[in-house]
Amino acid sequence: MGADHARKLATVIAGAEVVSVADVNTAVARRVADELGAGVHQDGFAVIEDDGVDAVVIATHDDTHAELILAALRVGKPVMCEKPLATTAAECRTVVEAQSALAAAVDPVTVGFMRRFDPSYVALRQRVLGGVLGNPLIVHCVSRTVRTYPGGDSASSITQSAIHELDIVPWLLDSPIVSVSYQHGRSSANSERRQDPQLYLLRTASDVLVTVELFLNARYGYDTRCEVVMENGTAALTLPTHIVTDSERQRSVGYPADWIPRYSDAYRIELQEWIDSVRQSRVSTLAGAADGLRASVVADALVQSMNANGTWVTI
Amino acid sequence: MGADHARKLATVIAGAEVVSVADVNTAVARRVADELGAGVHQDGFAVIEDDGVDAVVIATHDDTHAELILAALRVGKPVMCEKPLATTAAECRTVVEAQSALAAAVDPVTVGFMRRFDPSYVALRQRVLGGVLGNPLIVHCVSRTVRTYPGGDSASSITQSAIHELDIVPWLLDSPIVSVSYQHGRSSANSERRQDPQLYLLRTASDVLVTVELFLNARYGYDTRCEVVMENGTAALTLPTHIVTDSERQRSVGYPADWIPRYSDAYRIELQEWIDSVRQSRVSTLAGAADGLRASVVADALVQSMNANGTWVTI
Amino acid sequence: MGADHARKLATVIAGAEVVSVADVNTAVARRVADELGAGVHQDGFAVIEDDGVDAVVIATHDDTHAELILAALRVGKPVMCEKPLATTAAECRTVVEAQSALAAAVDPVTVGFMRRFDPSYVALRQRVLGGVLGNPLIVHCVSRTVRTYPGGDSASSITQSAIHELDIVPWLLDSPIVSVSYQHGRSSANSERRQDPQLYLLRTASDVLVTVELFLNARYGYDTRCEVVMENGTAALTLPTHIVTDSERQRSVGYPADWIPRYSDAYRIELQEWIDSVRQSRVSTLAGAADGLRASVVADALVQSMNANGTWVTI
Amino acid sequence: MGADHARKLATVIAGAEVVSVADVNTAVARRVADELGAGVHQDGFAVIEDDGVDAVVIATHDDTHAELILAALRVGKPVMCEKPLATTAAECRTVVEAQSALAAAVDPVTVGFMRRFDPSYVALRQRVLGGVLGNPLIVHCVSRTVRTYPGGDSASSITQSAIHELDIVPWLLDSPIVSVSYQHGRSSANSERRQDPQLYLLRTASDVLVTVELFLNARYGYDTRCEVVMENGTAALTLPTHIVTDSERQRSVGYPADWIPRYSDAYRIELQEWIDSVRQSRVSTLAGAADGLRASVVADALVQSMNANGTWVTI
Repeated sequence: MGADHARKLATVIAGAEVVSVADVNTAVARRVADELGAGVHQDGFAVIEDDGVDAVVIATHDDTHAELILAALRVGKPVMCEKPLATTAAECRTVVEAQSALAAAVDPVTVGFMRRFDPSYVALRQRVLGGVLGNPLIVHCVSRTVRTYPGGDSASSITQSAIHELDIVPWLLDSPIVSVSYQHGRSSANSERRQDPQLYLLRTASDVLVTVELFLNARYGYDTRCEVVMENGTAALTLPTHIVTDSERQRSVGYPADWIPRYSDAYRIELQEWIDSVRQSRVSTLAGAADGLRASVVADALVQSMNANGTWVTI
Repeated sequence: MGADHARKLATVIAGAEVVSVADVNTAVARRVADELGAGVHQDGFAVIEDDGVDAVVIATHDDTHAELILAALRVGKPVMCEKPLATTAAECRTVVEAQSALAAAVDPVTVGFMRRFDPSYVALRQRVLGGVLGNPLIVHCVSRTVRTYPGGDSASSITQSAIHELDIVPWLLDSPIVSVSYQHGRSSANSERRQDPQLYLLRTASDVLVTVELFLNARYGYDTRCEVVMENGTAALTLPTHIVTDSERQRSVGYPADWIPRYSDAYRIELQEWIDSVRQSRVSTLAGAADGLRASVVADALVQSMNANGTWVTI
Repeated sequence: MGADHARKLATVIAGAEVVSVADVNTAVARRVADELGAGVHQDGFAVIEDDGVDAVVIATHDDTHAELILAALRVGKPVMCEKPLATTAAECRTVVEAQSALAAAVDPVTVGFMRRFDPSYVALRQRVLGGVLGNPLIVHCVSRTVRTYPGGDSASSITQSAIHELDIVPWLLDSPIVSVSYQHGRSSANSERRQDPQLYLLRTASDVLVTVELFLNARYGYDTRCEVVMENGTAALTLPTHIVTDSERQRSVGYPADWIPRYSDAYRIELQEWIDSVRQSRVSTLAGAADGLRASVVADALVQSMNANGTWVTI
Repeated sequence: MGADHARKLATVIAGAEVVSVADVNTAVARRVADELGAGVHQDGFAVIEDDGVDAVVIATHDDTHAELILAALRVGKPVMCEKPLATTAAECRTVVEAQSALAAAVDPVTVGFMRRFDPSYVALRQRVLGGVLGNPLIVHCVSRTVRTYPGGDSASSITQSAIHELDIVPWLLDSPIVSVSYQHGRSSANSERRQDPQLYLLRTASDVLVTVELFLNARYGYDTRCEVVMENGTAALTLPTHIVTDSERQRSVGYPADWIPRYSDAYRIELQEWIDSVRQSRVSTLAGAADGLRASVVADALVQSMNANGTWVTI
């Protein structure tokens, strides 16, 4: 992910230059740095302290997010951190507080909830908030990936994967999530340790009921769906496609294998907005630390519901 | 509905003849009878007792279903009754017991759960039970209509409308529903008295988790959706369409206004199967009285969950 | 095809009875007759002369159409003949003249141009003639099948297969074809003797320009497409589907292998209209002998253009 | 168009800076320059001669393309010119010759045939040239826009609009167009002076037959279609969409009003490739002057066919 961000910054973003990089795998860091004409540091802290670096992108292991963000805050550099902001709501709060203590005109911490920049989600939000179809009543979200990585348990499906839905739903409806319930049925034989698929019910302050199916071993493809049911009609994301093929008795369009092609535009637009806002010292439309905390609190509530047999948990 | 059945039997079903009809509105009965060259009786009981009548279709008000079926059983005539079999599970049981008492080689009572004959549902079931995509894990059903009729409360949405899903889901998965939970959020401003939309969670004996959104005032069109998520892929109903139109910056396909065009084929195929099975004195593939009872018991459980704040109710 | 018609008449058409059948393969005739409880005759002429037979369906080899129709006309029985009416325009003329000589109130000969009863073509025609989108300007037709049968040359692609388009286009636009041009490029390696695909340009009396691609060895599936481009929008047939499947990185819907599932409804509705019109001694909405002749004349003109290097041929 | 390019270069392209701009409408030039922090020159020649300018984008009136390109060649600056390269094949030849005379390691002239960078066309080409579906046999292109600008005649539809198809088809099939035929039927009542729609038949050196419908007053939306029919299947562009809406009995997706949203990605990727190739002094994947000439020669042949009643014209 870090390499992908670095390449985008160097090759398709206006106004950015990749000065130095770091990675726990130094060979990878060296390869990317050579490719982009950048320097290499032994770790992220050294990148953050590099005088030639004006702003920092963090795409390291989730465990390290908080301490790296705090390091960037200490030297007063803007930072864009891949989601999640931190692994627990408590740790997120530490970040939010450290940022608040700065009382900066423009908050320096942003979180990589890139779906906010996906052209489909943007169009969906305009349709929903535009009001022509009436108030939203129900939302159906589906988030499926091909397979899980080794390790990870049922809770990590929520905190690491479903976290995207927990950010995007309130953004889409302009209303926070106020209560949640975790449900499940049969688990796929393709899932080793964790319950998969999982189903969440969310309720917003505006009393919209939301269903979220998260299925990480869906096998068939990487697929994000979202339908908003309003009083006079519905609007939904479409499957992004370029071509349709007729062969062997089928008319078919392709699914991406993972999030990289699916959200390539979103990442590019997000990075451009981040670079522009940093250069112009202005508030960006990216998710901030408070958004990262908010999603994390909802995720924790879902884990709590999971451990309480699906009981509704109020936030 | 009765007129539609009578017309189909007279004009597009092989081996059937409409001998006599009845309707509480005698002018309607007269008009349909004249159109089809049939006789008119003052009420359904008279039709049932008419010696020229070999088999009976009941499409009267739900309240009258049970007594008319019982009358047909008394004279030993096969009967196809529109859903629901009766208004309560208790009344359904009376019908089932009366039929059982006959100990007939072929049960005479069938229920008009026509979705079992819809070519789309049939194809979906073949895909699901065919096994190529693995076990079903989750099912998402959506049932939307343009508007509600006057009268009717939140419970009637379940017993009169959702009843179709309560029959089709077990048929589709070949596994009965064993527990249910009723959920809701904001109600549409277009709905006067009842909660609309409603959301149900169902669980089958095979531990498949099912979401059902029922939205009777959806306004935009009559729309039935069903997606079955399996271990290695998914299968879903498509929107039946004949043509696509490009105009005014839109590419669009049409929704039907109600169930009549949507399920026209299903009704025709169902009626043909009923006529054939009656003429051949053989077991049909239609839903029987036991199926009608089963769906009614699940509906009652959903009403109970509704009145208990969404608690899961075991059947 | 004959067996399919016989089965439909016996099992899904109101008001019809299959009395007797014949086939050059007597074993097939015997099997179908036994299945449907009908008698068998040694040839079609004997069926036509059978006193118990009121009306005749002809689905024999194209070569025999004309003489069988003429035999039916001699005994004054209504006849529905599969397309083409006859193998040459000259032979078609003989049939039209024989029918005209009868000066019957209702012409007894109808031709099985079943697309006129396909619900998609019917909906398309309503949209086109409805006028809301303005005058039709251009039409694009595509007719693809999986493979050709052994035998047959480039001309037979026109007279036996493209004949459907040559009937449906004037019906769709309510204007006859007045000139044609045959074009071709590279032929598929899958085609042995004939040029395949072929491309036709047609011009109607209303000056609509029509492109027709006929590709009989298209391999991927049986596929009929038609788009009518009008002054303020377009309308086109959709691919009829029941379910959509997600698997192996693809979202797909299925193509039929041949015309039987694709036009099953069309054949059923056509046969019902034929039976109804015969029983009611009324003019039907089926194609008549004159329509069969008209399509045949256009086909001959296309063959002439093919032999004249694509020159436009006026009809 | 020029303003759009300037904005993209300044805001979403890596490695570019907009130094100075010019426009016949000096107020527009001033506004764009102010917005982007660039200077303004009185005309394009002054921009070309500006020492601070390393490379030039030309998006002026078609008439001026050739002389501006020649001016850039004189000062040895790379130039990207919007299509067409020039208004006549003769003028294009002048440009090609001037460039050849330079005998530069990297040809400095590129033409803005941006469809070569559209992700859909790129995916289509990969599918076609990938060979899995066999050789291409027939191609169907459709190019529709909402309305024509005032002025312009039937020939200008070819030279200014269809020119995109005349470039993309050979690129897609990797084979040049060797003969063409112009056809037409009824013209839309919405078209004032020119024949609209028009239909072209093209034949490539590989003997692929291509139909192109160009309809500039199609009213319903901006729509580019392309289907390549191969021996074992077909591949086609899809309509790019972000959301689907259900309302008022319709399921619909939107069409763009013009080419700007439809080809926004293509323009961005094209400009990035141009900037990268200029900075790296390497051959780009953009269309060059020879491609511009080639398309222009085919356009001239189509005009000749138009004036010769549709006769095939060999190139």
